[in-house]
Amino acid sequence: MSGLESAALLVRALDLVGTFVFAISGAALGTQRGMDLFGVLVLGCVTAVVGGITRDVLIGAIPPASVASWHNLALALAAGLLTFRFSRLFDRLQQPVQFFDAAGLGVFAVAGTQKAVAFGINWPMAAVLGMISGIGGGMVRDMLAAQVPTVLRADIYAVAALAGALVVVAGSALGLPPTAVALAGVALCVFLRLMALYHGWRLPAAPSREP
Amino acid sequence: MSGLESAALLVRALDLVGTFVFAISGAALGTQRGMDLFGVLVLGCVTAVVGGITRDVLIGAIPPASVASWHNLALALAAGLLTFRFSRLFDRLQQPVQFFDAAGLGVFAVAGTQKAVAFGINWPMAAVLGMISGIGGGMVRDMLAAQVPTVLRADIYAVAALAGALVVVAGSALGLPPTAVALAGVALCVFLRLMALYHGWRLPAAPSREP
Amino acid sequence: MSGLESAALLVRALDLVGTFVFAISGAALGTQRGMDLFGVLVLGCVTAVVGGITRDVLIGAIPPASVASWHNLALALAAGLLTFRFSRLFDRLQQPVQFFDAAGLGVFAVAGTQKAVAFGINWPMAAVLGMISGIGGGMVRDMLAAQVPTVLRADIYAVAALAGALVVVAGSALGLPPTAVALAGVALCVFLRLMALYHGWRLPAAPSREP
Repeated sequence: MSGLESAALLVRALDLVGTFVFAISGAALGTQRGMDLFGVLVLGCVTAVVGGITRDVLIGAIPPASVASWHNLALALAAGLLTFRFSRLFDRLQQPVQFFDAAGLGVFAVAGTQKAVAFGINWPMAAVLGMISGIGGGMVRDMLAAQVPTVLRADIYAVAALAGALVVVAGSALGLPPTAVALAGVALCVFLRLMALYHGWRLPAAPSREP
Repeated sequence: MSGLESAALLVRALDLVGTFVFAISGAALGTQRGMDLFGVLVLGCVTAVVGGITRDVLIGAIPPASVASWHNLALALAAGLLTFRFSRLFDRLQQPVQFFDAAGLGVFAVAGTQKAVAFGINWPMAAVLGMISGIGGGMVRDMLAAQVPTVLRADIYAVAALAGALVVVAGSALGLPPTAVALAGVALCVFLRLMALYHGWRLPAAPSREP
Repeated sequence: MSGLESAALLVRALDLVGTFVFAISGAALGTQRGMDLFGVLVLGCVTAVVGGITRDVLIGAIPPASVASWHNLALALAAGLLTFRFSRLFDRLQQPVQFFDAAGLGVFAVAGTQKAVAFGINWPMAAVLGMISGIGGGMVRDMLAAQVPTVLRADIYAVAALAGALVVVAGSALGLPPTAVALAGVALCVFLRLMALYHGWRLPAAPSREP
């Protein structure tokens, strides 16, 4: 197997991992809220596929990839079922889940940016659409749970996705090899995310002025 | 009038009934929250048309049926106006409203699945899109009212829609006559919904672990 | 410069003003909620562009104008940065901001209706899509902040947008000159909005029946 082929395999594997881990994060929020099995599965699937679906609708890739094929949904359903059944186990596995979530975020952001560029979107919006691919699912998950999306309040999460996306648009503009660029983008996203998690890197916040 | 024609008429009539009853359920939530007339009408229209619009955007039927024609919106507006004016009356009519809501849910799910199949969507996603046609409006209604969508917490509702949708994809795969399949799908959805309402059929729920 | 050219320039200028002011209103809500810089910028951009993006997806103008070009996003980001940096200043500027918000609302509603008519949408839905262009961003802004959209509860806001939109469809049906019609639509929207702000014009509200 050549280096390129193994790199493409890696990206595909990380995409599946990302779908799986995003679905876990959605389903876990559902079990915490005491939702029934259906609610837990919906929250898992929404978290895993809504970011990509939003990107696909906005760039004109209709029907979106997650509608044209049922594989992503099936994987997200499996993740949701496992989370519902073994919710205590996933509570203890928080650290590996956070790591895979960072990897999934990077892969979604990078692959989303590549797709938007391939559809001829200008580079600033391609980066934004890549970021949306990564964070959109989690935002709708939180809206369905009637809470302010954590991505709007919390540490470096969306910014890590945006950084990975910008690596892709920069590499595309410079004509660098796509696979190396993609891996660099994912790596930067994961690095920033881990720095935020374990070294407390943050963005400045406006002081809350609500009563 | 032949049997087929009267069955088609029945489906069309139930579609109008579904639009009307879904609009009532949205408008009723608006009046309960003390919204003004406009808010009540918006909540009614959103509940009636957003599920179908979402399906149409995802399968590429753009502009969506509820945008290409103004009839659904007009019917939803009429239902919203009646609900606003006679809100006390609708409080007392809860039982018939629940029955028509179940019929509307079944019709929306069945018709949505048929449309997705006709647009060449694979059968698992066609069933999901049919379910979304049925429950999407109510989910956005609840998000606009800043509450967790009841469909994620409550008894068998989305599952009834999904069951009706699965009847359609199964019948379509087996080449059965569409009208009979559609009626069977609606009947199954209504049956499950009424069992949930009057016999307490439920899905297992994760125990709430929030403080 | 002819009268027509200066009128077109005026509409274009008001469109930029509307984007800028809508972004301020979103960013201001983010700072009030103690969001970090990213959350503030997202809320600003969402408020400025989501209404138009929704309209464009529904009429089939894909990719939407705010995706096909990055100018609106850049302007909204600038407004969000200013709001984040000088949030106290914007607190004191509430009155001019409200005026420009009314102007932005009118321009978005009028321009949105014109675009929907140009895409062959029937006139009642074209007016609704124009109204959505004006109020959609603020509705999603409020949903992201986990609060009931103010447009559903508050004084005459959406109705002002709808009135401006109806002027456009009426003028289009009567074959009146588009620029004059557009200016009349914006003027009516601003007038109604200012009447609501300074003379307390309201719609009837249903009495709240929640505990």
